[in-house]
Amino acid sequence: MLFTQTFIPTLREVPADAVIASHRLMFRSGMLRKLANGLFAYLPLGLRSFRKVEALVREEMNAIGALEIKPTVVVPGELWKESGRWETMGEAMLRVKNRLGGDFVLSPTAEEAVTSLVRDALASYRQLPLTLYQINTKYRDEIRPRYGVMRGREFIMKDAYSYHTDEASLDETYRAMGAAYRRIFKRCGLSVIPVRADAGAMGGSDSEEFMVESAVGDNTLILCRDCEYAANVEKASCKPEAVSAAPSRASAVPALEPIHTPAVKTIEQLCAFLKTDAHRFIKTLIYRARNVALDLSGTPGAALLEKRKSSPEAPEVYPEAFFAVAIRGDLEVNEVKLAAVLKASEVSLAADAEVERLTAAPLGFAGPVGLTRIPLVADLMVAAIQDGITGALAADTHYVHVVFGRDFVPWLSADLRTVVSGDSCILCGGELYEKKGNELGHIFKLGYKYTRSMQVSYLDESGQTHIPLMGSYGIGIDRTLASVIEEHHDDEGIIWPMTVAPYQVIIIPITYAGPVKALADTLAADLEQSRIDVLLDDRNERPGVKFKDADLMGIPYRVVVGEKNLARDVPVVEVKRRGEASVRLVEVSKVEAELSRLVYKELSC
Amino acid sequence: MLFTQTFIPTLREVPADAVIASHRLMFRSGMLRKLANGLFAYLPLGLRSFRKVEALVREEMNAIGALEIKPTVVVPGELWKESGRWETMGEAMLRVKNRLGGDFVLSPTAEEAVTSLVRDALASYRQLPLTLYQINTKYRDEIRPRYGVMRGREFIMKDAYSYHTDEASLDETYRAMGAAYRRIFKRCGLSVIPVRADAGAMGGSDSEEFMVESAVGDNTLILCRDCEYAANVEKASCKPEAVSAAPSRASAVPALEPIHTPAVKTIEQLCAFLKTDAHRFIKTLIYRARNVALDLSGTPGAALLEKRKSSPEAPEVYPEAFFAVAIRGDLEVNEVKLAAVLKASEVSLAADAEVERLTAAPLGFAGPVGLTRIPLVADLMVAAIQDGITGALAADTHYVHVVFGRDFVPWLSADLRTVVSGDSCILCGGELYEKKGNELGHIFKLGYKYTRSMQVSYLDESGQTHIPLMGSYGIGIDRTLASVIEEHHDDEGIIWPMTVAPYQVIIIPITYAGPVKALADTLAADLEQSRIDVLLDDRNERPGVKFKDADLMGIPYRVVVGEKNLARDVPVVEVKRRGEASVRLVEVSKVEAELSRLVYKELSC
Repeated sequence: MLFTQTFIPTLREVPADAVIASHRLMFRSGMLRKLANGLFAYLPLGLRSFRKVEALVREEMNAIGALEIKPTVVVPGELWKESGRWETMGEAMLRVKNRLGGDFVLSPTAEEAVTSLVRDALASYRQLPLTLYQINTKYRDEIRPRYGVMRGREFIMKDAYSYHTDEASLDETYRAMGAAYRRIFKRCGLSVIPVRADAGAMGGSDSEEFMVESAVGDNTLILCRDCEYAANVEKASCKPEAVSAAPSRASAVPALEPIHTPAVKTIEQLCAFLKTDAHRFIKTLIYRARNVALDLSGTPGAALLEKRKSSPEAPEVYPEAFFAVAIRGDLEVNEVKLAAVLKASEVSLAADAEVERLTAAPLGFAGPVGLTRIPLVADLMVAAIQDGITGALAADTHYVHVVFGRDFVPWLSADLRTVVSGDSCILCGGELYEKKGNELGHIFKLGYKYTRSMQVSYLDESGQTHIPLMGSYGIGIDRTLASVIEEHHDDEGIIWPMTVAPYQVIIIPITYAGPVKALADTLAADLEQSRIDVLLDDRNERPGVKFKDADLMGIPYRVVVGEKNLARDVPVVEVKRRGEASVRLVEVSKVEAELSRLVYKELSC
Repeated sequence: MLFTQTFIPTLREVPADAVIASHRLMFRSGMLRKLANGLFAYLPLGLRSFRKVEALVREEMNAIGALEIKPTVVVPGELWKESGRWETMGEAMLRVKNRLGGDFVLSPTAEEAVTSLVRDALASYRQLPLTLYQINTKYRDEIRPRYGVMRGREFIMKDAYSYHTDEASLDETYRAMGAAYRRIFKRCGLSVIPVRADAGAMGGSDSEEFMVESAVGDNTLILCRDCEYAANVEKASCKPEAVSAAPSRASAVPALEPIHTPAVKTIEQLCAFLKTDAHRFIKTLIYRARNVALDLSGTPGAALLEKRKSSPEAPEVYPEAFFAVAIRGDLEVNEVKLAAVLKASEVSLAADAEVERLTAAPLGFAGPVGLTRIPLVADLMVAAIQDGITGALAADTHYVHVVFGRDFVPWLSADLRTVVSGDSCILCGGELYEKKGNELGHIFKLGYKYTRSMQVSYLDESGQTHIPLMGSYGIGIDRTLASVIEEHHDDEGIIWPMTVAPYQVIIIPITYAGPVKALADTLAADLEQSRIDVLLDDRNERPGVKFKDADLMGIPYRVVVGEKNLARDVPVVEVKRRGEASVRLVEVSKVEAELSRLVYKELSC
C-alpha cells in the first residue's frame, strides 16, 4: 500500500484529553478519531490492527470448537425481563423505545439473546456441549468515558456462551476457554494477570478475570509477594488476624456499660476520647440493598418487606431491603462481597434519614446491640473483638465492654472486609500488595442462572427433561488493542508486536524517484507476494518526517532505500527493527528473503 | 467441519410468517433465527454465507482504492443537527437519549459521521480524492418489518463516502463504484437491474439504484419494452402525450362558466354527470410539505409562513407550507417528484380541515381558478387540457371551459405525474411496463449537500479554501444475501452460487463407520487442504434425511460415500451438483482433484 493512497493523518501534537499512552498514540498515529465522548472511529491504520486482534481471537475460538453467530446489537427488552436483568442491570445499560413503544436494549452483553436462540433450537442432549460466540458491537452508557477506547461507550466484544449437560462438560469448556485466552493474550504480546475469583477460600462459582496492569485501571488487584495469589479487590480474601485464634473469654469482660460521649461522632474522635484505637471499635453501617434474593423471613423487619417477581419466570426478590453491617473500626466494608452475600443486585449506604429511622437514633450512634428493626450482618473479624466499643442507638451514648455473642448475635456473619496492602495472603501468609489493572477478559461459570429463568431444556437419552448448565466468556477487542500499545511503546511511538501490527514492513525511499523508486516498488510487491503487509512511504516529505511517522506508527521493520547505498558495488538497503537502536545493511538481492524470514519468525512466536 | 460439531438446526416445517422463499429457506436450513420482529440472528451456517458476501464486497471496494474505517453505530445527534437531517429524517431513524440527556442516533446511514471525520482530518487537496467505507450495523425503525432479512430493522450495510476537488474526480469514483457494484452482483450470481435516476430527461444529480425483481419488492420499476430505459416509479418520466403538441386555442373556447353540480364529489360522478371523461378534468389536491427549502417569497400565503434553521449551519427552510397541486383527472401525483420539486423533506395530503380552510370551500370542490391562499403547482400535462372542467371553490359548483393561462396561471409547472404501465418511453416512445423490485444498492452524487452544511474545506495548491464534492454509495449485505436465495432455489431448498455458498462440498457417508468413514475423513481433510469449505455429515441419520438436508442447505457439490461403491474393482463415489439431476460416479483416486477443479472453475466465473 502506498502511503499517499491510504489515509493516515498523523499528528505532532498530543490531544488535550489523552492522558494514557495508548489514547495519545492511537490519535497521533492516525489510527483513531473521536466522534463524541466515548465514541471513536477507527481510521484505516487503526482498523488494520483491530481486525488482526479480531482474527486472532476468532482463530482461537474456532480452534476450541466455538461456533460464530451474529445476533443483533439491538435486542428486545422482553428477553431481559425474562432473565430478571431488566431491573437489575442499572443505568449503564442503554434502553431504547422504538416508535411503536416497544422496549429494546443496546446489548451490553448477550446472555439473554444467545440463550433465547439456544432455547428455540435445543432439543436433545446430542446437541450439547454447544459453544456459540459473536464478535460484535456492545454499548455501555458510561457516565465518564475516558482513556480513549480503553473505556469507551461503544466497543466490540467477543462474547461466547456455552451450554452443557453436566459439570464435567462445563469444566472442560471453561478450561479450554482459559487456555485459549492465555494463547490470545500471549500472541498479542500481552502480559496478563489471570485473577481467579475463587482463589483460596472464596469457593462458589468459578470465574477468572484476565487483567493487565495499568496506572489508570478501573480495578484494584490484590497480589501476594510470595505466591501466585491474585484477586480482584472486590473479591479478595486475606488470612484472619491472629487475635481470632485466642478464644473470646466473655466471662473475663465486665458487663456492657453505656458511657456519655457528647459531640463524639467519628471513630477518630472516639478513639481520642477513650484513649484506645480503632481495632476495638465495632463500626455499624446501614446499607440499602436492591433485589435481594436471600430469604429474609424471620429477620427483624422482614414482615414489612415486599417480595416481587419481575416476570413469571424470574426468581422472587425483595426489591428493597435494609441491613446493618458491623465491621471492625479500622476496616472497610467491601460492597461487592456484601452484595454477593445478600444475593443483591446492588448495595449502597442508606440515606441519613433512613439511618435515623432504622436505628431510632441520631446519625453516628448506630451499633449492633439492641437493634430490632433490621437484620444485622457482621464481618468475620467482629467476632474476634474481645472487649468492644460501639454506638448505643442513643444520642451522645456509646457502649463499652461489648462482647460478641453475649451482647449481640448477628443474623449472618461473613467475610465482608476490603483487603488492603499489608494484609496476609490467605494461601501462604505472605504480604499482599495492590496494583491497578484493567480487565481484558472474563470467563465465568454461570450454572443455571439464565437457563433456569429463561426455561431452556433438553431431553436426555431416556427422554427426561433437563436444564443445561451455562458458561460465559468475554474479551474486549478495543481494550486488548489499546493494552498492546500500553505495553509496547516508547517516547517516539508504538512498537507493535508482529502479530497485530497494522503493517509489518515500512519501506522508506529517501526520494521516491528513479532507481530508488524502482527498487522500493519491486521490494513492496515481492513482500506482498509473500503475504507480508507493507506500507511504502511515497510521500514527497523530508526523510526525517518519514522516519518520525514510521516510529510513531510503530511498524516493526523499517527499510530505508537511498541512492548512495544503491550506488555501492554491492547495493544495500538499511533495515531496522522498531524499538532497537541498531541499523543493519542488507544486500538488495537478499533483503526480501531476509525480511520474510524475520517477519514469519516473529509471527510464529 | 463435522455436522455434529456445528449447529445447524434444520426444520421440516415452514415458519408461519415466512411468505418469501429466502425467508422460508433461511429458517428451514438453520441459517437464521428470529429474536424479535425485524431482528434476526445468523446462526453458523448463515453467517458463513453472510461473511462471504461481506468479503466479496470488501474485496471489490479495496480494488477501487476505497479505504475501510469503523465509526461507531451510535453517533451523536449533534452531527445530524449540523446537516439538518435531525429534523428531516422522519421517524424511521431511531433516536436515543443517553443517561446524561444527550441525543444520539442509531445510524441508518453515515454521511454525517464520516463527513465529520473527514472535516477533522482534511487539510490539503493532496489528500483528495478520498473514499472511505465501512461494513457495519445500521438500524431503521421499520413499522412493519417483513420478509425476514429482506426488510429487517437491524442490518449490515456497506456504505462508502467519497470526497473530491472537482466534478471529473467525482465522476471517476462514481463510475468506478458503479462498475464495482456490477462486479459484486455478478459474482454473487444476481441479475440486477441498474436504474438510473437521471435516465432521460430527469437531469440533476446522478444516482443509480441496483434493483432485483421481487414480487414483494418495495419499489415499483418502470421499464421499457423496446429500450434500456429503467427507472424507479418515484422518478420515472414518460413522453408527454401527443395532445400537448397542438397549441391551446383559448380564443376558440367559450368563457369560463360555473355550473351547479349538486352531490357530485368524485371525478367519476362528475364524468357521469357531464358525460365526459377524466382527461378533461383538472384535479386539485392540497398538500402539506415539510422543511421546504424552495424560496416561497411572493407566493400566495407566503407572508404568513415562518422560516427557520435547525442549526446555525443548516439551510433556512419553511418547517411547514401548503400547496395546491393541479393534475389531469386520470393521472396520479407522484409525491417523490413533488417533494423534489418543492425541495421538501416530505409531502402528504393535507387534513380535511386544512383543505377547507385553504380553499375556502367544502371538500371536493377545490380548483385552480381564483385560488388565493396558497401557491398553485401544476403538472405539465395540465397545460395541454384545452377546455377543462374543475372545482369552483364553492359548494356544489364546478367550472367548465377552463383554459390554462387564461383562467389560471400556476406558480410552478413541473413533471409531477406517476408513470404507469402503458405510458410511452421518454427515450424511444416504446411501451412502458411495471415490475416490483427491491433495492440492493444505491450510488449517489451528493455534490456539496453535506460538505457545505457541515463546513468541510481544504486548501488548494495556491492556498485557497474550497469545499469538496461528495458521493455516497451503499449496499445492503443482508438483502443481497437474501436476494441470492430468491434467485437461486427450487422446491427442495437453496442452490448456492459457489462464491457465497456456506460450504462448497458436502460429503455424505451412508453410514459413518469403517472404510466409508475413513474415506470420508480423508477426502474432507484433502479438500480443506485445498482451501475448499467442506461439511461432512457424520450424523447417525438415514441417508434420506441427510440428502434432504443437503438439498435444503443448497451446498453446491454433494459427494455420497457408500460401502457398495467402495467395494467395486475401481472404487467410486457419487458426485452430484445441486440443482442438476444427474449423478456421476467418480473414481476415489480422482475425486479430490475433480472436485477442486469444479469448485475453482465456478469460483472464477
